Amino acid sequence: MELLLPNPANSTPLTTLGFLDRAATAYGDSPSIVYNNMASSLTSLGIQRGQVVSVVAPNVPSMYELQFAVPIESKLVFVDHHSSSLVLEAISLFPRNTKHPQLILIDDEMVSSGSKSSLSNSHFLDHYEGILEDGDPKFKWVRPKSEWDPIVLNYTSGTTSCPKGVSLSHRAIFIKTMDALVDWSVPNQPVYLWTLPIFHANGWSFPWGMAAVGGTNICLRKVDPSQIYRLVKQHKVTHMCGAPVVLNMLSNSPDLETLEHHVQILTAGSPPPAAVLARTESMGFVVSHGYGLTEIGGIVFSCAWKQKWNKLPLTERARLKSRQGMNTVCFGTVGLTEADVLDPKTGELVKPDGKTVGEVVLRGGSLMLGYLKDIEGTSKCMRENGWFYTGDVGVIHPDGYLEIKDQSKDIIISDGENISGPEVESVLYSNPVFWGETPCAFVSLKKNGELTQKPSEKEIIQYCRDRLPHYMVPKTVVFENELPKTSTGKVQKFILRRIAKAMS
Amino acid sequence: MELLLPNPANSTPLTTLGFLDRAATAYGDSPSIVYNNMASSLTSLGIQRGQVVSVVAPNVPSMYELQFAVPIESKLVFVDHHSSSLVLEAISLFPRNTKHPQLILIDDEMVSSGSKSSLSNSHFLDHYEGILEDGDPKFKWVRPKSEWDPIVLNYTSGTTSCPKGVSLSHRAIFIKTMDALVDWSVPNQPVYLWTLPIFHANGWSFPWGMAAVGGTNICLRKVDPSQIYRLVKQHKVTHMCGAPVVLNMLSNSPDLETLEHHVQILTAGSPPPAAVLARTESMGFVVSHGYGLTEIGGIVFSCAWKQKWNKLPLTERARLKSRQGMNTVCFGTVGLTEADVLDPKTGELVKPDGKTVGEVVLRGGSLMLGYLKDIEGTSKCMRENGWFYTGDVGVIHPDGYLEIKDQSKDIIISDGENISGPEVESVLYSNPVFWGETPCAFVSLKKNGELTQKPSEKEIIQYCRDRLPHYMVPKTVVFENELPKTSTGKVQKFILRRIAKAMS
Repeated sequence: MELLLPNPANSTPLTTLGFLDRAATAYGDSPSIVYNNMASSLTSLGIQRGQVVSVVAPNVPSMYELQFAVPIESKLVFVDHHSSSLVLEAISLFPRNTKHPQLILIDDEMVSSGSKSSLSNSHFLDHYEGILEDGDPKFKWVRPKSEWDPIVLNYTSGTTSCPKGVSLSHRAIFIKTMDALVDWSVPNQPVYLWTLPIFHANGWSFPWGMAAVGGTNICLRKVDPSQIYRLVKQHKVTHMCGAPVVLNMLSNSPDLETLEHHVQILTAGSPPPAAVLARTESMGFVVSHGYGLTEIGGIVFSCAWKQKWNKLPLTERARLKSRQGMNTVCFGTVGLTEADVLDPKTGELVKPDGKTVGEVVLRGGSLMLGYLKDIEGTSKCMRENGWFYTGDVGVIHPDGYLEIKDQSKDIIISDGENISGPEVESVLYSNPVFWGETPCAFVSLKKNGELTQKPSEKEIIQYCRDRLPHYMVPKTVVFENELPKTSTGKVQKFILRRIAKAMS
Repeated sequence: MELLLPNPANSTPLTTLGFLDRAATAYGDSPSIVYNNMASSLTSLGIQRGQVVSVVAPNVPSMYELQFAVPIESKLVFVDHHSSSLVLEAISLFPRNTKHPQLILIDDEMVSSGSKSSLSNSHFLDHYEGILEDGDPKFKWVRPKSEWDPIVLNYTSGTTSCPKGVSLSHRAIFIKTMDALVDWSVPNQPVYLWTLPIFHANGWSFPWGMAAVGGTNICLRKVDPSQIYRLVKQHKVTHMCGAPVVLNMLSNSPDLETLEHHVQILTAGSPPPAAVLARTESMGFVVSHGYGLTEIGGIVFSCAWKQKWNKLPLTERARLKSRQGMNTVCFGTVGLTEADVLDPKTGELVKPDGKTVGEVVLRGGSLMLGYLKDIEGTSKCMRENGWFYTGDVGVIHPDGYLEIKDQSKDIIISDGENISGPEVESVLYSNPVFWGETPCAFVSLKKNGELTQKPSEKEIIQYCRDRLPHYMVPKTVVFENELPKTSTGKVQKFILRRIAKAMS
């Protein structure tokens, strides 16, 4: 068998870039030349292999198109008109006479104009549409020289520290995209609503995933429940993704209504409280729950549903579903090879007893190449033993399912006991009038008139005392109009921690 | 970006072997230790990396299990009791005092015993179940050292020449398996009926695919329509595969009945005549049609269905579906990079006009390493220009869909005109009383009493003359009780050709 080695015919680099071409032929009535145009324009502008093109934009069509058009220090920045003043401010910080990246303005027909005038600002080279028109519709996309070439650079949202630049390869994104489609059972020609920001871990790889299955992409600037309900109805949306905060918004919206058809919704980013899951499912959403990181390109654990669980009561079903679950299909099995939960002291596997906590470690095909220009940060989490250390803490249940207990950086130690933040949170969420953070509970009260009387600090503490071990009950309650959140909707715990510290 | 290179954490070799482990945890109520046992037993028997273990068996459970248990010149042969005399005959051809492979007998509880006695034959080392019992249930499967290591050695069925040993890598099978699941939109926990032989191109990679999605495998010794109808009903089968001859058997069976639920059926291997497609669909089967080769691990073209085609009349739908279609998602786009149809003289792409024929060439991640011990055969089809030459002839339609016209080795040249075998066949199939081969038509009449009077040679020729250009009409008709077929149900044209030659 020694003579049979890789050769040019069987070792074409893996990449997701061809998915859009195929979708255009199979599912488009006219050829999709848009991104060919853009890819050729980028080449004309002198963008080469190894150079970064940045995009500062919400989920507008150009954001989707650019996932396919950018070949891969930032030479060019595409800026949505809403973010133009922010980017211009950043540019103004460049020392005088220094070369700064060229800027392209993304207009949006859906939003009232006025942004065109910004072009008078000499910082902008052109409009997105202008660049597109200059492109060559016959331009053929260039396959990467190696499947290990970076395809994207994603910035983490920074719930626990400064944002980091995560570099992912064509190979990693290919593996993650195929994995995500199989794991979520995405059929051909879905209608996908972009509630999850594409700038967040590449929308968990679904820009390429939707091209793979010929999906229709419904773009959305901002997560707004009434807009979502309108679009779901109008376009017969079949699939969407979002952090648990999106589920919470949907199930607490004044526009709340039972769906006319089932909508698959995939949630990840933090453990969704059982009560939120239960409320969302009762409206007709079919919720799948997973766990992932920007560093591994998307979701790598998902709570694979067992048919026998359908017979259980709603609250028990929600409890089971709030666990992060099983490795997705491309990531082997917990306790075997590609994911483990290790005791932080011994480095050994933790017992699958649902109690013993350890740190979640990963390895596998969709793991990042590393953090850009951060050798120290990269080697800190990608260790010599071949594991990537996530910084997340979890337990393995006797049935093999993982449950994240809290981010290790966030662990609360009170009188020598480890307190699991999410456990306290889930009790708070189960009271339908509020949702917040503990052990100093930051509580944001609902706005949609369900309240006859605001609960007092005392009442909230009593509610928790009835449902939690004594040592886990929050000692202080802070009412906040709005909790500080990252651009992806995650609560910024480090800001709350700072407030709590200032109070003590 | 230069510092970011592959490292041990992100470059784990791709393989499908872990899929079964995961399925056992996610979907099994008890851990699946069966194949761990077998993998450990094989190690105990001295089987090492680089050595081949053979299996001579139909779709029995052990055949499925062995897809995961064999690490990869045959040292060990697993033999189904039905094939034991055949294998013993082969062994007897070994020169005296030569070491021949050790034999393991596969019993089948579903079949009346009597085979146990064969063990008295000293050629058999043990029973399959015996080997299994000796295994270590705690044995951990070994990840391949390289994703380029061979995982399987498949023999082609030889419709056009001698069987060849096709060696496929872990990487190739991983890519093909994920591709097949996405392309056919296979959901989680399907019920899969094994009408397609696992020994044929590994059942198009669905042994691993079913483990990936936690499917239930219904084994089947032999394609028998009444058995199939019974199992579909009993187990609520959702998915099955088979050559067009299986569709033909199902739609001509005396047990024919309209299905109580839809069954997805994927067909490939030869172009299914439109009339067979139409009959099968009218019974409740949802037919998908694809094209592939053992050499590329399974199906790499499939007729991606456009929703607008649903409005067309049945015969037009069947005509569109009988085309091989679009590259599957991991294989780029016809005319771009990973598949092309080339003019045999110029080596240039053929025009997408639905008329100009050329040879189908492929490259990509699931292509074989090569033919075992056949350097000449390998270099003949895997050429220096980086393409694998399939030997199949096709056209590209204006909508980008491929249609195979005939195997180039089979092309019939009559008075200087190229005659497309399938085109003649499809006219013959559209007459519901027979199906056959041309231009010397080998006709096998149906057996289930639809015939009041057998058609004469003259009537068959007249039927074709009414529907085909004059030069394509068969000049001779040979009535055969049964057409010679390969073990996978393909008509052995080279035998028919020999008969035709002997007649002329």
